[in-house]
Amino acid sequence: MSTNYHGQQEFTGSFGSVLSSRSTTMRAIIQRVTKASVTVGGEQVSSIGRGICVLLGISADDTQKDAEYMVRKILNLRLFEDESGRAWAKSVMDRELEVLCVSQFTLQCILKGNKPDFHAAMPAELAQPFYNSILESMRSAYRPELITDGKFGAYMQVNIQNDGPVTVELTSPAAPTDPKQLSKLEKQQLRKEKTRSKGSSESGREKSSLRSRQDPGASSGAEGDVSSDRES
Amino acid sequence: MSTNYHGQQEFTGSFGSVLSSRSTTMRAIIQRVTKASVTVGGEQVSSIGRGICVLLGISADDTQKDAEYMVRKILNLRLFEDESGRAWAKSVMDRELEVLCVSQFTLQCILKGNKPDFHAAMPAELAQPFYNSILESMRSAYRPELITDGKFGAYMQVNIQNDGPVTVELTSPAAPTDPKQLSKLEKQQLRKEKTRSKGSSESGREKSSLRSRQDPGASSGAEGDVSSDRES
Repeated sequence: MSTNYHGQQEFTGSFGSVLSSRSTTMRAIIQRVTKASVTVGGEQVSSIGRGICVLLGISADDTQKDAEYMVRKILNLRLFEDESGRAWAKSVMDRELEVLCVSQFTLQCILKGNKPDFHAAMPAELAQPFYNSILESMRSAYRPELITDGKFGAYMQVNIQNDGPVTVELTSPAAPTDPKQLSKLEKQQLRKEKTRSKGSSESGREKSSLRSRQDPGASSGAEGDVSSDRES
Repeated sequence: MSTNYHGQQEFTGSFGSVLSSRSTTMRAIIQRVTKASVTVGGEQVSSIGRGICVLLGISADDTQKDAEYMVRKILNLRLFEDESGRAWAKSVMDRELEVLCVSQFTLQCILKGNKPDFHAAMPAELAQPFYNSILESMRSAYRPELITDGKFGAYMQVNIQNDGPVTVELTSPAAPTDPKQLSKLEKQQLRKEKTRSKGSSESGREKSSLRSRQDPGASSGAEGDVSSDRES
Protein backbone atom coordinates (compact mmCIF):
# COMPACT_ATOMS: atom_id res chain seq x y z
CA MET A 1 0.00 0.00 0.00
CA SER A 2 2.50 2.59 -1.09
CA THR A 3 0.11 4.16 -3.55
CA ASN A 4 -1.39 6.96 -1.62
CA TYR A 5 -2.36 9.46 -4.27
CA HIS A 6 -4.58 11.78 -2.37
CA GLY A 7 -2.29 13.22 0.24
CA GLN A 8 -1.92 12.60 3.91
CA GLN A 9 -4.11 10.16 5.71
CA GLU A 10 -5.08 11.16 9.19
CA PHE A 11 -7.59 9.58 11.48
CA THR A 12 -8.06 12.31 13.99
CA GLY A 13 -11.06 12.04 16.23
CA SER A 14 -14.73 11.82 15.53
CA PHE A 15 -16.74 13.59 12.91
CA GLY A 16 -20.29 14.25 11.98
CA SER A 17 -22.20 15.88 9.24
CA VAL A 18 -25.25 18.02 9.45
CA LEU A 19 -26.20 18.34 5.84
CA SER A 20 -25.67 14.68 5.06
CA SER A 21 -26.97 12.06 7.41
CA ARG A 22 -27.14 8.88 5.39
CA SER A 23 -26.06 5.69 7.05
CA THR A 24 -22.86 4.02 6.00
CA THR A 25 -23.40 1.01 3.78
CA MET A 26 -21.54 -0.46 0.88
CA ARG A 27 -22.20 1.60 -2.23
CA ALA A 28 -21.77 0.73 -5.85
CA ILE A 29 -22.24 2.93 -8.88
CA ILE A 30 -23.08 0.70 -11.80
CA GLN A 31 -22.64 2.15 -15.26
CA ARG A 32 -23.75 0.15 -18.27
CA VAL A 33 -20.90 0.38 -20.75
CA THR A 34 -20.10 -0.20 -24.39
CA LYS A 35 -16.50 -0.49 -23.25
CA ALA A 36 -14.36 0.51 -20.30
CA SER A 37 -10.71 0.37 -19.32
CA VAL A 38 -8.24 1.38 -16.65
CA THR A 39 -4.86 2.95 -17.17
CA VAL A 40 -2.21 3.55 -14.52
CA GLY A 41 0.70 5.79 -15.45
CA GLY A 42 -0.32 5.72 -19.10
CA GLU A 43 -0.33 1.94 -19.20
CA GLN A 44 -3.55 0.02 -19.68
CA VAL A 45 -4.06 -2.48 -16.87
CA SER A 46 -7.48 -3.81 -17.86
CA SER A 47 -10.27 -3.39 -20.35
CA ILE A 48 -13.67 -4.79 -21.10
CA GLY A 49 -16.15 -4.62 -23.93
CA ARG A 50 -19.89 -4.49 -23.40
CA GLY A 51 -20.98 -4.94 -19.80
CA ILE A 52 -20.91 -2.91 -16.60
CA CYS A 53 -18.37 -0.76 -14.82
CA VAL A 54 -18.75 -1.05 -11.06
CA LEU A 55 -17.28 1.62 -8.78
CA LEU A 56 -17.37 0.04 -5.33
CA GLY A 57 -17.15 1.96 -2.06
CA ILE A 58 -16.74 -0.08 1.12
CA SER A 59 -17.71 1.48 4.43
CA ALA A 60 -16.01 0.81 7.75
CA ASP A 61 -19.15 -0.94 8.96
CA ASP A 62 -19.54 -3.38 6.09
CA THR A 63 -19.65 -7.10 6.71
CA GLN A 64 -19.61 -10.26 4.69
CA LYS A 65 -23.41 -10.00 4.52
CA ASP A 66 -23.18 -6.66 2.72
CA ALA A 67 -20.62 -8.15 0.34
CA GLU A 68 -22.84 -11.12 -0.51
CA TYR A 69 -25.84 -8.89 -1.10
CA MET A 70 -23.88 -6.59 -3.41
CA VAL A 71 -22.29 -9.38 -5.44
CA ARG A 72 -25.71 -10.93 -5.95
CA LYS A 73 -27.32 -7.64 -6.97
CA ILE A 74 -24.48 -6.53 -9.24
CA LEU A 75 -24.58 -9.77 -11.21
CA ASN A 76 -28.36 -10.03 -11.37
CA LEU A 77 -29.39 -6.43 -11.90
CA ARG A 78 -31.32 -6.21 -15.16
CA LEU A 79 -29.76 -3.42 -17.13
CA PHE A 80 -29.82 -5.05 -20.54
CA GLU A 81 -32.47 -5.81 -23.10
CA ASP A 82 -33.37 -9.31 -24.15
CA GLU A 83 -33.10 -10.81 -27.63
CA SER A 84 -36.42 -9.29 -28.65
CA GLY A 85 -35.30 -5.80 -27.61
CA ARG A 86 -37.33 -5.62 -24.40
CA ALA A 87 -35.54 -3.25 -22.02
CA TRP A 88 -34.51 -4.03 -18.42
CA ALA A 89 -34.90 -7.74 -19.05
CA LYS A 90 -31.44 -9.27 -18.71
CA SER A 91 -28.50 -9.04 -16.34
CA VAL A 92 -24.81 -8.88 -17.21
CA MET A 93 -24.69 -12.58 -16.29
CA ASP A 94 -27.73 -13.47 -18.42
CA ARG A 95 -26.08 -11.88 -21.43
CA GLU A 96 -22.59 -13.19 -20.61
CA LEU A 97 -21.16 -9.70 -20.69
CA GLU A 98 -18.13 -8.32 -18.86
CA VAL A 99 -17.63 -6.60 -15.51
CA LEU A 100 -14.94 -4.05 -14.69
CA CYS A 101 -14.86 -3.52 -10.94
CA VAL A 102 -12.86 -0.66 -9.41
CA SER A 103 -12.51 0.15 -5.72
CA GLN A 104 -13.78 3.68 -5.02
CA PHE A 105 -13.55 4.84 -1.43
CA THR A 106 -14.79 8.34 -2.32
CA LEU A 107 -18.31 6.91 -2.56
CA GLN A 108 -18.17 6.85 1.24
CA CYS A 109 -18.08 10.62 1.20
CA ILE A 110 -19.78 12.61 3.90
CA LEU A 111 -19.93 16.32 3.22
CA LYS A 112 -18.69 18.79 5.78
CA GLY A 113 -20.00 21.87 4.09
CA ASN A 114 -18.41 21.42 0.69
CA LYS A 115 -15.45 19.37 1.81
CA PRO A 116 -15.63 15.63 1.33
CA ASP A 117 -14.83 13.60 4.42
CA PHE A 118 -13.90 9.94 4.05
CA HIS A 119 -13.74 8.70 7.63
CA ALA A 120 -16.71 6.45 6.86
CA ALA A 121 -14.67 4.47 4.32
CA MET A 122 -13.02 1.26 5.43
CA PRO A 123 -9.28 1.87 5.93
CA ALA A 124 -7.24 0.44 3.05
CA GLU A 125 -5.39 -2.25 4.96
CA LEU A 126 -8.79 -3.74 5.77
CA ALA A 127 -10.54 -2.71 2.59
CA GLN A 128 -8.01 -4.26 0.21
CA PRO A 129 -8.38 -7.91 1.32
CA PHE A 130 -12.12 -7.42 1.75
CA TYR A 131 -12.38 -5.95 -1.73
CA ASN A 132 -10.34 -8.84 -3.11
CA SER A 133 -12.68 -11.31 -1.45
CA ILE A 134 -15.63 -9.54 -3.09
CA LEU A 135 -13.96 -9.88 -6.48
CA GLU A 136 -13.37 -13.56 -5.77
CA SER A 137 -17.02 -14.07 -4.83
CA MET A 138 -18.03 -12.35 -8.04
CA ARG A 139 -15.72 -14.58 -10.08
CA SER A 140 -17.00 -17.72 -8.37
CA ALA A 141 -20.62 -16.71 -8.88
CA TYR A 142 -20.07 -15.90 -12.55
CA ARG A 143 -17.14 -16.60 -14.86
CA PRO A 144 -13.68 -15.52 -13.69
CA GLU A 145 -12.51 -14.51 -17.14
CA LEU A 146 -15.37 -12.04 -17.50
CA ILE A 147 -14.57 -10.11 -14.30
CA THR A 148 -11.70 -7.67 -14.34
CA ASP A 149 -10.27 -5.17 -11.90
CA GLY A 150 -8.49 -1.85 -11.53
CA LYS A 151 -5.41 -1.50 -9.37
CA PHE A 152 -6.37 -1.04 -5.74
CA GLY A 153 -5.16 2.23 -4.25
CA ALA A 154 -3.38 3.39 -7.41
CA TYR A 155 -4.00 6.67 -9.18
CA MET A 156 -6.02 5.46 -12.15
CA GLN A 157 -7.71 6.83 -15.21
CA VAL A 158 -10.94 4.88 -15.55
CA ASN A 159 -12.30 5.22 -19.08
CA ILE A 160 -16.00 4.60 -19.08
CA GLN A 161 -18.16 4.65 -22.18
CA ASN A 162 -21.50 4.89 -20.47
CA ASP A 163 -24.09 3.36 -22.79
CA GLY A 164 -27.45 5.18 -22.67
CA PRO A 165 -26.38 6.57 -20.29
CA VAL A 166 -27.57 4.03 -17.76
CA THR A 167 -26.34 4.52 -14.21
CA VAL A 168 -27.75 2.93 -11.09
CA GLU A 169 -26.65 3.20 -7.50
CA LEU A 170 -26.76 0.11 -5.33
CA THR A 171 -26.47 0.20 -1.57
CA SER A 172 -26.28 -2.78 0.71
CA PRO A 173 -29.04 -3.10 3.30
CA ALA A 174 -28.06 -1.00 6.31
CA ALA A 175 -29.72 -3.46 8.64
CA PRO A 176 -30.38 -7.18 8.23
CA THR A 177 -33.52 -7.58 6.18
CA ASP A 178 -36.47 -8.63 8.26
CA PRO A 179 -37.86 -11.80 6.65
CA LYS A 180 -41.35 -10.79 7.76
CA GLN A 181 -41.07 -7.72 5.57
CA LEU A 182 -40.21 -9.73 2.52
CA SER A 183 -43.05 -10.29 0.16
CA LYS A 184 -43.57 -13.74 -1.23
CA LEU A 185 -42.18 -12.57 -4.54
CA GLU A 186 -39.01 -11.22 -3.01
CA LYS A 187 -38.44 -14.47 -1.20
CA GLN A 188 -38.86 -16.39 -4.42
CA GLN A 189 -36.39 -14.02 -6.01
CA LEU A 190 -33.84 -14.61 -3.26
CA ARG A 191 -34.20 -18.37 -3.57
CA LYS A 192 -33.85 -18.17 -7.32
CA GLU A 193 -30.66 -16.14 -7.06
CA LYS A 194 -29.20 -18.43 -4.44
CA THR A 195 -29.80 -21.37 -6.71
CA ARG A 196 -28.20 -19.65 -9.69
CA SER A 197 -25.19 -18.34 -7.87
CA LYS A 198 -22.43 -20.77 -7.12
CA GLY A 199 -21.41 -18.15 -4.49
CA SER A 200 -18.30 -18.99 -2.48
CA SER A 201 -18.32 -18.08 1.18
CA GLU A 202 -14.67 -18.81 1.82
CA SER A 203 -13.95 -15.17 2.44
CA GLY A 204 -16.25 -15.01 5.45
CA ARG A 205 -13.68 -16.11 7.95
CA GLU A 206 -11.01 -13.98 6.40
CA LYS A 207 -13.25 -10.97 6.72
CA SER A 208 -14.22 -11.41 10.34
CA SER A 209 -10.60 -11.73 11.36
CA LEU A 210 -9.89 -8.50 9.53
CA ARG A 211 -12.41 -6.56 11.46
CA SER A 212 -10.21 -6.42 14.54
CA ARG A 213 -8.65 -3.34 12.91
CA GLN A 214 -5.01 -3.90 13.54
CA ASP A 215 -2.58 -1.07 12.86
CA PRO A 216 -4.92 1.86 12.30
CA GLY A 217 -1.99 4.11 11.45
CA ALA A 218 -1.08 2.18 8.32
CA SER A 219 -1.97 3.23 4.82
CA SER A 220 -5.65 3.42 4.15
CA GLY A 221 -8.37 3.03 1.55
CA ALA A 222 -9.61 6.33 2.83
CA GLU A 223 -6.42 7.89 1.64
CA GLY A 224 -7.90 11.31 1.19
CA ASP A 225 -7.00 14.34 3.18
CA VAL A 226 -9.40 13.76 6.03
CA SER A 227 -7.95 16.34 8.34
CA SER A 228 -10.33 18.28 10.50
CA ASP A 229 -9.91 21.70 8.89
CA ARG A 230 -13.31 22.35 7.45
CA GLU A 231 -13.13 25.78 5.92
CA SER A 232 -9.85 27.18 4.75
CA MET B 1 -39.77 13.97 -27.10
CA SER B 2 -39.64 11.36 -29.80
CA THR B 3 -36.44 9.88 -28.45
CA ASN B 4 -37.66 7.09 -26.31
CA TYR B 5 -34.82 4.62 -26.41
CA HIS B 6 -35.73 2.26 -23.64
CA GLY B 7 -39.00 0.84 -24.78
CA GLN B 8 -42.55 1.42 -23.77
CA GLN B 9 -43.47 3.85 -21.08
CA GLU B 10 -46.33 2.82 -18.91
CA PHE B 11 -47.56 4.38 -15.72
CA THR B 12 -49.69 1.65 -14.36
CA GLY B 13 -50.71 1.99 -10.79
CA SER B 14 -48.74 2.24 -7.60
CA PHE B 15 -45.61 0.39 -6.65
CA GLY B 16 -43.46 -0.30 -3.70
CA SER B 17 -40.14 -1.87 -2.98
CA VAL B 18 -39.16 -3.99 -0.07
CA LEU B 19 -35.44 -4.29 -0.58
CA SER B 20 -34.94 -0.63 -1.36
CA SER B 21 -36.67 1.96 0.73
CA ARG B 22 -34.74 5.18 0.16
CA SER B 23 -36.69 8.36 -0.23
CA THR B 24 -36.90 10.05 -3.58
CA THR B 25 -34.66 13.07 -3.86
CA MET B 26 -32.65 14.57 -6.64
CA ARG B 27 -29.50 12.51 -7.15
CA ALA B 28 -26.28 13.41 -8.87
CA ILE B 29 -23.29 11.21 -9.55
CA ILE B 30 -20.27 13.46 -9.82
CA GLN B 31 -17.20 12.03 -11.51
CA ARG B 32 -14.00 14.03 -11.56
CA VAL B 33 -12.73 13.82 -15.12
CA THR B 34 -9.64 14.42 -17.18
CA LYS B 35 -12.00 14.71 -20.12
CA ALA B 36 -15.53 13.72 -21.05
CA SER B 37 -17.76 13.86 -24.08
CA VAL B 38 -21.15 12.86 -25.42
CA THR B 39 -21.90 11.30 -28.78
CA VAL B 40 -25.32 10.69 -30.29
CA GLY B 41 -25.53 8.45 -33.33
CA GLY B 42 -21.75 8.53 -33.70
CA GLU B 43 -21.65 12.32 -33.73
CA GLN B 44 -20.03 14.23 -30.88
CA VAL B 45 -22.48 16.72 -29.39
CA SER B 46 -20.33 18.05 -26.56
CA SER B 47 -16.99 17.64 -24.86
CA ILE B 48 -15.04 19.02 -21.94
CA GLY B 49 -11.50 18.86 -20.67
CA ARG B 50 -10.64 18.70 -16.99
CA GLY B 51 -13.60 19.13 -14.66
CA ILE B 52 -16.61 17.10 -13.58
CA CYS B 53 -19.17 14.94 -15.30
CA VAL B 54 -22.54 15.21 -13.59
CA LEU B 55 -25.19 12.54 -14.13
CA LEU B 56 -28.37 14.10 -12.78
CA GLY B 57 -31.49 12.18 -11.79
CA ILE B 58 -34.61 14.19 -11.03
CA SER B 59 -37.34 12.61 -8.93
CA ALA B 60 -41.06 13.26 -9.30
CA ASP B 61 -41.04 14.99 -5.92
CA ASP B 62 -38.24 17.46 -6.57
CA THR B 63 -38.80 21.16 -6.22
CA GLN B 64 -36.93 24.34 -6.98
CA LYS B 65 -35.39 24.07 -3.51
CA ASP B 66 -33.78 20.74 -4.40
CA ALA B 67 -32.50 22.24 -7.64
CA GLU B 68 -30.92 25.21 -5.88
CA TYR B 69 -29.25 22.99 -3.31
CA MET B 70 -27.82 20.69 -5.99
CA VAL B 71 -26.52 23.51 -8.19
CA ARG B 72 -24.79 25.03 -5.17
CA LYS B 73 -23.25 21.74 -4.08
CA ILE B 74 -22.17 20.66 -7.55
CA LEU B 75 -20.32 23.90 -8.17
CA ASN B 76 -18.79 24.16 -4.70
CA LEU B 77 -17.91 20.55 -3.95
CA ARG B 78 -14.17 20.35 -3.35
CA LEU B 79 -12.89 17.56 -5.52
CA PHE B 80 -9.69 19.21 -6.70
CA GLU B 81 -6.36 19.97 -5.15
CA ASP B 82 -5.06 23.47 -4.67
CA GLU B 83 -1.93 24.97 -6.19
CA SER B 84 0.24 23.44 -3.48
CA GLY B 85 -1.15 19.95 -4.15
CA ARG B 86 -3.37 19.76 -1.08
CA ALA B 87 -6.24 17.38 -1.89
CA TRP B 88 -9.96 18.15 -1.57
CA ALA B 89 -9.24 21.87 -1.42
CA LYS B 90 -10.84 23.42 -4.50
CA SER B 91 -14.10 23.18 -6.37
CA VAL B 92 -14.63 23.05 -10.13
CA MET B 93 -15.55 26.75 -9.89
CA ASP B 94 -12.46 27.63 -7.83
CA ARG B 95 -10.26 26.06 -10.47
CA GLU B 96 -12.30 27.39 -13.40
CA LEU B 97 -12.74 23.90 -14.79
CA GLU B 98 -15.53 22.54 -16.94
CA VAL B 99 -18.82 20.80 -16.23
CA LEU B 100 -20.56 18.25 -18.43
CA CYS B 101 -24.08 17.69 -17.16
CA VAL B 102 -26.22 14.84 -18.46
CA SER B 103 -29.77 14.01 -17.45
CA GLN B 104 -29.95 10.47 -16.04
CA PHE B 105 -33.38 9.30 -14.95
CA THR B 106 -32.08 5.81 -14.14
CA LEU B 107 -30.59 7.22 -10.93
CA GLN B 108 -34.19 7.25 -9.68
CA CYS B 109 -34.15 3.48 -9.80
CA ILE B 110 -36.04 1.47 -7.24
CA LEU B 111 -35.35 -2.23 -7.39
CA LYS B 112 -38.17 -4.72 -7.62
CA GLY B 113 -36.10 -7.78 -7.02
CA ASN B 114 -33.51 -7.32 -9.74
CA LYS B 115 -35.65 -5.29 -12.08
CA PRO B 116 -35.14 -1.52 -12.08
CA ASP B 117 -38.33 0.49 -11.68
CA PHE B 118 -38.33 4.16 -12.65
CA HIS B 119 -41.74 5.38 -11.50
CA ALA B 120 -39.95 7.62 -9.00
CA ALA B 121 -38.33 9.63 -11.81
CA MET B 122 -39.98 12.84 -12.93
CA PRO B 123 -41.80 12.23 -16.24
CA ALA B 124 -39.86 13.67 -19.18
CA GLU B 125 -42.33 16.35 -20.20
CA LEU B 126 -41.87 17.84 -16.74
CA ALA B 127 -38.26 16.83 -16.26
CA GLN B 128 -36.97 18.40 -19.47
CA PRO B 129 -37.88 22.04 -18.72
CA PHE B 130 -36.92 21.52 -15.06
CA TYR B 131 -33.58 20.08 -16.10
CA ASN B 132 -33.03 22.99 -18.49
CA SER B 133 -33.75 25.44 -15.69
CA ILE B 134 -31.15 23.67 -13.55
CA LEU B 135 -28.60 24.03 -16.34
CA GLU B 136 -29.48 27.71 -16.61
CA SER B 137 -29.04 28.19 -12.86
CA MET B 138 -25.67 26.51 -13.09
CA ARG B 139 -24.61 28.74 -15.97
CA SER B 140 -25.75 31.86 -14.13
CA ALA B 141 -23.97 30.86 -10.96
CA TYR B 142 -20.73 30.06 -12.81
CA ARG B 143 -19.66 30.80 -16.39
CA PRO B 144 -22.02 29.72 -19.18
CA GLU B 145 -19.20 28.73 -21.55
CA LEU B 146 -17.83 26.25 -19.00
CA ILE B 147 -21.10 24.31 -18.61
CA THR B 148 -22.09 21.87 -21.31
CA ASP B 149 -24.87 19.37 -21.78
CA GLY B 150 -25.85 16.05 -23.30
CA LYS B 151 -28.99 15.70 -25.40
CA PHE B 152 -32.02 15.22 -23.19
CA GLY B 153 -33.83 11.94 -23.80
CA ALA B 154 -31.52 10.81 -26.60
CA TYR B 155 -29.64 7.54 -26.68
CA MET B 156 -26.13 8.75 -25.87
CA GLN B 157 -22.67 7.40 -25.42
CA VAL B 158 -21.18 9.33 -22.52
CA ASN B 159 -17.40 9.00 -22.56
CA ILE B 160 -16.06 9.60 -19.10
CA GLN B 161 -12.37 9.56 -18.22
CA ASN B 162 -12.76 9.32 -14.47
CA ASP B 163 -9.64 10.84 -12.91
CA GLY B 164 -8.53 9.00 -9.76
CA PRO B 165 -11.14 7.61 -9.86
CA VAL B 166 -13.07 10.14 -7.82
CA THR B 167 -16.81 9.63 -7.69
CA VAL B 168 -19.21 11.21 -5.23
CA GLU B 169 -22.96 10.93 -4.94
CA LEU B 170 -24.95 14.00 -4.03
CA THR B 171 -28.56 13.90 -2.92
CA SER B 172 -30.76 16.88 -2.26
CA PRO B 173 -32.16 17.14 1.26
CA ALA B 174 -35.32 15.06 1.45
CA ALA B 175 -36.88 17.48 3.88
CA PRO B 176 -36.26 21.20 4.40
CA THR B 177 -33.16 21.55 6.54
CA ASP B 178 -33.97 22.58 10.07
CA PRO B 179 -31.96 25.76 10.77
CA LYS B 180 -31.65 24.70 14.41
CA GLN B 181 -29.73 21.66 13.29
CA LEU B 182 -27.25 23.72 11.35
CA SER B 183 -23.98 24.27 13.09
CA LYS B 184 -22.52 27.74 13.09
CA LEU B 185 -19.97 26.59 10.55
CA GLU B 186 -22.57 25.25 8.18
CA LYS B 187 -24.48 28.51 8.34
CA GLN B 188 -21.35 30.46 7.53
CA GLN B 189 -20.79 28.11 4.64
CA LEU B 190 -24.28 28.67 3.32
CA ARG B 191 -23.87 32.43 3.54
CA LYS B 192 -20.53 32.25 1.80
CA GLU B 193 -21.97 30.25 -1.05
CA LYS B 194 -24.96 32.53 -1.42
CA THR B 195 -22.64 35.49 -1.69
CA ARG B 196 -20.46 33.78 -4.29
CA SER B 197 -23.25 32.47 -6.39
CA LYS B 198 -25.02 34.92 -8.63
CA GLY B 199 -27.80 32.30 -8.61
CA SER B 200 -30.81 33.14 -10.75
CA SER B 201 -34.20 32.25 -9.38
CA GLU B 202 -36.11 32.98 -12.56
CA SER B 203 -36.83 29.30 -13.00
CA GLY B 204 -38.82 29.15 -9.77
CA ARG B 205 -42.07 30.26 -11.25
CA GLU B 206 -41.57 28.15 -14.30
CA LYS B 207 -41.10 25.09 -12.12
CA SER B 208 -44.14 25.53 -9.91
CA SER B 209 -46.35 25.85 -12.95
CA LEU B 210 -44.85 22.64 -14.25
CA ARG B 211 -45.77 20.66 -11.23
CA SER B 212 -49.43 20.50 -12.18
CA ARG B 213 -48.47 17.42 -14.24
CA GLN B 214 -50.38 17.90 -17.39
CA ASP B 215 -50.62 15.01 -19.83
CA PRO B 216 -49.21 12.12 -17.80
CA GLY B 217 -49.52 9.83 -20.80
CA ALA B 218 -46.99 11.75 -22.86
CA SER B 219 -43.39 10.74 -23.32
CA SER B 220 -41.41 10.59 -20.17
CA GLY B 221 -38.00 11.00 -18.63
CA ALA B 222 -38.72 7.68 -17.06
CA GLU B 223 -38.80 6.13 -20.45
CA GLY B 224 -37.82 2.71 -19.28
CA ASP B 225 -39.98 -0.32 -19.41
CA VAL B 226 -41.75 0.14 -16.13
CA SER B 227 -44.40 -2.44 -16.70
CA SER B 228 -45.54 -4.48 -13.79
CA ASP B 229 -44.18 -7.84 -14.84
CA ARG B 230 -41.53 -8.52 -12.26
CA GLU B 231 -40.18 -11.93 -13.00
CA SER B 232 -40.23 -13.29 -16.49
